[in-house]
Amino acid sequence: MKTITSRQNPLFKRIRAAIREHEEEIVIEGPKAVADAIAHGWTPIAVVNRDVEFSSELFEALSETRSPQDVIGLFARPRGDAAAILGRRDTIAVALDGVQDPGNVGTIVRLAAAFDAAGVLLLAGCADAFGPKAVRASVGAILSVPVAEITVPQLIASNVPLIATAADGERIDPPSRNAVLVFGSEGSGVSDELARAARKLAIATSGRVESLNVGASAAILLARSYALRT
Amino acid sequence: MKTITSRQNPLFKRIRAAIREHEEEIVIEGPKAVADAIAHGWTPIAVVNRDVEFSSELFEALSETRSPQDVIGLFARPRGDAAAILGRRDTIAVALDGVQDPGNVGTIVRLAAAFDAAGVLLLAGCADAFGPKAVRASVGAILSVPVAEITVPQLIASNVPLIATAADGERIDPPSRNAVLVFGSEGSGVSDELARAARKLAIATSGRVESLNVGASAAILLARSYALRT
Repeated sequence: MKTITSRQNPLFKRIRAAIREHEEEIVIEGPKAVADAIAHGWTPIAVVNRDVEFSSELFEALSETRSPQDVIGLFARPRGDAAAILGRRDTIAVALDGVQDPGNVGTIVRLAAAFDAAGVLLLAGCADAFGPKAVRASVGAILSVPVAEITVPQLIASNVPLIATAADGERIDPPSRNAVLVFGSEGSGVSDELARAARKLAIATSGRVESLNVGASAAILLARSYALRT
Repeated sequence: MKTITSRQNPLFKRIRAAIREHEEEIVIEGPKAVADAIAHGWTPIAVVNRDVEFSSELFEALSETRSPQDVIGLFARPRGDAAAILGRRDTIAVALDGVQDPGNVGTIVRLAAAFDAAGVLLLAGCADAFGPKAVRASVGAILSVPVAEITVPQLIASNVPLIATAADGERIDPPSRNAVLVFGSEGSGVSDELARAARKLAIATSGRVESLNVGASAAILLARSYALRT
């Protein structure tokens, strides 16, 4: 087999589009992560190795990381089912509203796996959980956590109790099951429509900081919910 | 006053050294952060504004961020007192062992403020809490949280009970006071000598992830300790 060196190569262009847009196809980087994805039942569309299928230079042109991996896998984008996530009344689900940082989205996907949440629902204004940065921050959890997009009206219509973090909320434990924990952006919190529909919960803090990072808030509440459930 | 444009200017070189080395002097970036530092009683050695003291080009040469701030303050590096941190038996202290990522160190400084820990003790192999990335990640908390370096023998000799997170630890609540919570690096945990001297605590997880991010672990345990204390 001839090593591909041209940026006009259709597979190169397809992988580059998956890295940039991750609409229909997504990329997993690194030999262990690609092997894990296949072990989880994901079927690769293509697996390319540096200096084998693609020249080293072409490979570098794809990688977003400073220390690029030697293997890239191209996969169909998984489509989580919001109704199935909301149907799991034995645990809680997580919804994110305007969480723009892909590192935070990936961190919360990882926490959803660590604390057995039903899945992660993405409302408007969130970073995509299947972009390369979010996938890396999930440290493999994106393979096992259902992720689906949803709108505020759909979420409210589900009739699953909504719990939103808010500085003026009640200082209560999070629910252990049959609820959606909603996290907003660090700056502006959850949207007004959601805030009106949700019970508001505050994490007790000293007041010496204005807010917690959304990943820290999610860690605290998901761990507590898991501890109350198990 | 004449705007400085030369990279040979002594103040420019001094600020650049503080950004790179943060040994004796450190830098705080942004008008609000500099004002907050002064409000906290920090005395600036110098405050430079873009296009006033320093030309815009010289200013850009200093900034580590993509969207540089318009004000940089130069301050003497605060020296936290490890003995004073360990002497606070009414709350817990945090010790970090080999936490290399400055974002994680800054995040944990922020959590120490949020949950009223006595301070943060840095063991060998940690990123400096006073480097620009850690300062930014602390979101102002570096101004109010005592931070000091310490060695493992000093920490053990303090006779304050040590609690280290470990996958094989007991699934117990963290202490609410009179203890040091020790967090190791995500990959290798705390050092052997510390692990032998500490009681080991595990955060209950589903087992679907190999580990939690050290910032997530700290958020969960500091929040729980604070809830038990207040």
